[in-house]
Amino acid sequence: MDITLATAAERFKNARRVLLLSHSFPDGDTLGAASAMLRALRALGKEAKFCCEHEIPEKFKYLFEDLGQIYPCREFAPDLIAALDIADITLIGALAQEYEGRIDLCIDHHAANRKFAKESFVDPSAAAACEILCRLMAVLEAEITPEIATALFTGITTDTGCFRYRNTTADTHRAAAEMIACGADAGEINYRMFEIKTRSRLDLEKETLERMEFSADGRISMITIDREMVLRLGATQDDLDGISALPRQIEGVLVGITLREKEDGSYKVSLRTNAPVKANEIAAVFGGGGHAGAAGCTLEIPLQEAKRALMKASEAYLEALS
Amino acid sequence: MDITLATAAERFKNARRVLLLSHSFPDGDTLGAASAMLRALRALGKEAKFCCEHEIPEKFKYLFEDLGQIYPCREFAPDLIAALDIADITLIGALAQEYEGRIDLCIDHHAANRKFAKESFVDPSAAAACEILCRLMAVLEAEITPEIATALFTGITTDTGCFRYRNTTADTHRAAAEMIACGADAGEINYRMFEIKTRSRLDLEKETLERMEFSADGRISMITIDREMVLRLGATQDDLDGISALPRQIEGVLVGITLREKEDGSYKVSLRTNAPVKANEIAAVFGGGGHAGAAGCTLEIPLQEAKRALMKASEAYLEALS
Repeated sequence: MDITLATAAERFKNARRVLLLSHSFPDGDTLGAASAMLRALRALGKEAKFCCEHEIPEKFKYLFEDLGQIYPCREFAPDLIAALDIADITLIGALAQEYEGRIDLCIDHHAANRKFAKESFVDPSAAAACEILCRLMAVLEAEITPEIATALFTGITTDTGCFRYRNTTADTHRAAAEMIACGADAGEINYRMFEIKTRSRLDLEKETLERMEFSADGRISMITIDREMVLRLGATQDDLDGISALPRQIEGVLVGITLREKEDGSYKVSLRTNAPVKANEIAAVFGGGGHAGAAGCTLEIPLQEAKRALMKASEAYLEALS
Repeated sequence: MDITLATAAERFKNARRVLLLSHSFPDGDTLGAASAMLRALRALGKEAKFCCEHEIPEKFKYLFEDLGQIYPCREFAPDLIAALDIADITLIGALAQEYEGRIDLCIDHHAANRKFAKESFVDPSAAAACEILCRLMAVLEAEITPEIATALFTGITTDTGCFRYRNTTADTHRAAAEMIACGADAGEINYRMFEIKTRSRLDLEKETLERMEFSADGRISMITIDREMVLRLGATQDDLDGISALPRQIEGVLVGITLREKEDGSYKVSLRTNAPVKANEIAAVFGGGGHAGAAGCTLEIPLQEAKRALMKASEAYLEALS
């Protein structure tokens, strides 16, 4: 059931022990949201704990390091389970076994939210779950401490690619301004999130750029990242993130394709397109889906075949346009 | 003489024919400021013209294309000459011959502004001259049209590296929010400014990364861009801009050095450092200067000697730190 933000705030206010869930492969938004809510709820006198299928990545540990014990012990019996930035129950991975059907509240900004929680507040106009939480803090009458501001700013800046993506609105900037005024060190956060590249990320980019292939007069570009490369360069998930943005960044490219070899030998395909090409329409050819600008699919065929099939589908799409 | 923003607004209001100056090698801030002021002044019934030593780069032409004739004809006799985003008279290059001593008003955000104009409004807390102009529009009671909002947003986003640099404040985000609310298409502007890479920029990055050299256990990194490379790859000034950010982006790097060969065979050196290293202190060794994080100098010695000298000075600096 859809609820208002005021009702969502009531649910938190009336709870005594809250369990907060982040999605698997956690990013800055789901973790920033969890860090901010852990702090705000504790300040309101609640017991608040946190759960996620995967470990907190090194890059985001600063959001939690002063929070003491955040994981629930066996005896912890929450009277409110809240999902943050989670569009579908499958996105909590293995945790779904334990929590499916038990999630009381979901606060999210994905238009495709499946409303798996008993009550949901979903605002697709928000660039980040953390943008919604900036508003929730006011409704909760929770003080936005520098630590909360840091957490919420982290979510906003990471989900907008540092205010670059098209999801960024005037409200997003207003929320960012407020968080800076409350003590978020925007320069430092952005430096950590966007400026530093590891040597393995650098090497990965170098090799990837060398291998970039073009087709259809430079309107299609494709890169491949295989496991050998990842292992040889010691690239982490952090290093891999964002690489799929590279092909589309080249001038004139309408379809940017990234193939990444998975552990089982299949290929995870990321499609990033520029208007008028719709990435999800190309992904759909291979049983995948997504948005107009970004979509994906999985191919369980040998690499050369996969590349040919993707090139062919993209070329056919461009041909149909002209 | 320093004046208030209200006095600056008075000067514009009392003028009938205004000439606006942008600095040489014009960037998004000086051009966004000029575009916005041309529009605002014309809407207020003034005749407004524009002058810059260099042509408007392709990338920024959208700021002016609907403005008709912007350059002054011989007969144009301005009763107010205003410099926008210009810290020193030398920064208008060859135009200084004509305008030195004649500039009535300067609106700028550089702390190092030399107060070369008869009257100056300089606010170093502003991330961009365009951030100041957002405020000036209100004082002028000028309507912020979508075109003015686009111009001012362009200046703000380019001068902050899309809100990433440490000069970005809560006020910067507030100004951005206002410009979006007034009709700036932030997504489109940021896409044009930051997302698209030309093929020659891509090739330049690829070659530059291959040639990157490290020293002092990876705390110093250095890249060299020679004229042969630039000519062979057909790289433009636009392509070259931002390349000097690359060396410092690598994890662990404290001193990032970029040498760019100039037409006369000398080398323009960009130093980008992370705390606690102060770029201007290293640049000073070679008669250069700048800020703590970014500084520069020029070396008129052969490349290998220049590289050795820069490495040596940087290593000595790091040694003195430890």
